[in-house]
Amino acid sequence: MIPDLVEAGTLGRVGIGSYSTEAGVTIDDAEIAYQRWGSFAGDAHGNNNILLIEHALTGDSNVADWWGDLVGPGKALDTNHWCVIATNALGGCGGSTGPSSPHPDGGRWGSRFPALSIRDLVHAEHAFLNKLGISRVHAVIGGSMGGARTLEWTLLYPDALDAACVIAVSARASGWQIGIQTAQISAIERDPFWHGGNYYATDKVPADGLAAARRIAHLTYRGELEIDERFGTQPQRGENPLGPYRDDNQRFAVNSYLDYQASKLIERFDAGSYVAMTEALNRHDIGRDRGGLNKALASSQVPTMVVGVDTDILYPYHQQEHLSRNLGNLLAMAKVVSPVGHDAFLTESRQMDRVLRNFLRLSSPDGPAPEPLESEYYI
Amino acid sequence: MIPDLVEAGTLGRVGIGSYSTEAGVTIDDAEIAYQRWGSFAGDAHGNNNILLIEHALTGDSNVADWWGDLVGPGKALDTNHWCVIATNALGGCGGSTGPSSPHPDGGRWGSRFPALSIRDLVHAEHAFLNKLGISRVHAVIGGSMGGARTLEWTLLYPDALDAACVIAVSARASGWQIGIQTAQISAIERDPFWHGGNYYATDKVPADGLAAARRIAHLTYRGELEIDERFGTQPQRGENPLGPYRDDNQRFAVNSYLDYQASKLIERFDAGSYVAMTEALNRHDIGRDRGGLNKALASSQVPTMVVGVDTDILYPYHQQEHLSRNLGNLLAMAKVVSPVGHDAFLTESRQMDRVLRNFLRLSSPDGPAPEPLESEYYI
Repeated sequence: MIPDLVEAGTLGRVGIGSYSTEAGVTIDDAEIAYQRWGSFAGDAHGNNNILLIEHALTGDSNVADWWGDLVGPGKALDTNHWCVIATNALGGCGGSTGPSSPHPDGGRWGSRFPALSIRDLVHAEHAFLNKLGISRVHAVIGGSMGGARTLEWTLLYPDALDAACVIAVSARASGWQIGIQTAQISAIERDPFWHGGNYYATDKVPADGLAAARRIAHLTYRGELEIDERFGTQPQRGENPLGPYRDDNQRFAVNSYLDYQASKLIERFDAGSYVAMTEALNRHDIGRDRGGLNKALASSQVPTMVVGVDTDILYPYHQQEHLSRNLGNLLAMAKVVSPVGHDAFLTESRQMDRVLRNFLRLSSPDGPAPEPLESEYYI
Repeated sequence: MIPDLVEAGTLGRVGIGSYSTEAGVTIDDAEIAYQRWGSFAGDAHGNNNILLIEHALTGDSNVADWWGDLVGPGKALDTNHWCVIATNALGGCGGSTGPSSPHPDGGRWGSRFPALSIRDLVHAEHAFLNKLGISRVHAVIGGSMGGARTLEWTLLYPDALDAACVIAVSARASGWQIGIQTAQISAIERDPFWHGGNYYATDKVPADGLAAARRIAHLTYRGELEIDERFGTQPQRGENPLGPYRDDNQRFAVNSYLDYQASKLIERFDAGSYVAMTEALNRHDIGRDRGGLNKALASSQVPTMVVGVDTDILYPYHQQEHLSRNLGNLLAMAKVVSPVGHDAFLTESRQMDRVLRNFLRLSSPDGPAPEPLESEYYI
């Protein structure tokens, strides 16, 4: 059977019925949005060419956009060979059911939307694949929150994938991560337009709160030296941050940059989904109900590649070293070396190209062999 | 002439008249609060035994409290030998003139209080010393914001000190620091009780905003691994952060810890001073109007010891390496090795004891020689 997949690149939606969260709340009529690139080949219940890509916190199913250098014909995730599928996570705002979605009883979900764990996101995605008639994929690949989901895939559904590529994440939320993530949630909750998550019925959005959250978050996504080399103490052009009185309109360049990052996010992202996804990251813990972290990791049977970034503030490289030391079936370990920090898995295309090609070669020795990069002939 | 100093340990106030800020605003009737321990000896305009200690962002003149293991009879800053003086920074809320102080024209300063630079804090402190009849001290010592002031002392008034000890700070604010510091200011400004800094006339204080600022700040004051080792994903006792809905009263232990740190601060610190001091840190730049950073540092003639912490998130150790490579008259370099991060200069008493004793021995070879720690005989 060949799964009936959405037209390449367009957004499809698949109903997964009622979904019950890990903490016991039911989401009725849940839908998962997805996109796919490349044609399916193989056995939907056995060997096939599906790569399931997991997005990060504010990402979405449009992986050809946010990983544009890496997904497409001839690229590392070569859509001439592979069938790339990417969903929007449950709780997101990219088409899947989330806090901003209509509630079956009327209005938006808002505060009625339950807290999700990373496992919830994976269970819902698994239900989505089953609805498509797919019970196995070649690989699950993801970074950051996508990496957390990828890791949970290997433990929740080890028989559903040949291999996993876990990028820039940890085995569980760290205390520091929970602290800084909760600071972001707090920034949103403190916005007077938040209304406890029920702002959808008003004519205002908690944009200031979401912007404040993003400014904090962005400082954990980039390298400390990279930010300094780019901005240092420079004033924003035409503004004077050294004036006689403090003035939010007279900014250092770095603050203008952070404002810009925030303004881009508030145009495209829902504050309710931001809180839901961030809360899911707070609850990320591979060890929960599995006898602890290292026992859980040791039990992993899926060949897993672990990738980290040397300058990552949010998920420091020692966390990927921890994963690699303790995973039961480590396929490979790779370090992206970059001043960029956490975001390097999105921005360091040349290095990520090699990482992903290597992952596919290792995980699929008999599979399609994409051409090496031209530059490889000369270096 | 022996300066007429306040009784040991009690809070004194010294009027410095009108103070004009670097950006051109005059603060009339400015006062600087201070404390001192130990008796003055020597020449108030030459060799003497004064150690001027500079507090950090939310510190105050009570150095015998916040550096209790290091200041006192027989301790590293031995008050049997040294006359320890510590002021409250201009703009603070520990007795010196700041946003919460009465304005000469009535009411509190509030938004009328100007933006200060680190240089302003030093100029005001210099004026304070002059009022006491002191034109030279043996050393200026400080960490974090106190380190920034110490560094400015060596460039603004190189003839006023024999030596300096600059701890856990940088030559200028980094882009990352400005970003995270401005996030804290934003958290306060977004509090509806802030009223643009003029909340003093109301019956409310922007406590939630100050608390939010402190939670962010505290995550930069501690080591990432230390926080994780202490709290990890543990729930706060009696609370369940994994419940069916997100609930601010059902916390992870780390969030309870951060709430506690915030609650302690809001009891003792003024939000207006927090913004003023944080803004001063944003403006910290040794190179401004001195031909750039390294030229300024190279011009330094004061023997200066630089101290850093290996796990400091806020002022990473490479910033102290930068200082040590570029300072014109480096006395010594010391690394505090600790999981604690930035706060290690406050908490790692045993290491700081050695650092400060070493600093005094190097800076004052003919001065009082405090006894080595007992443990030194055995190690």
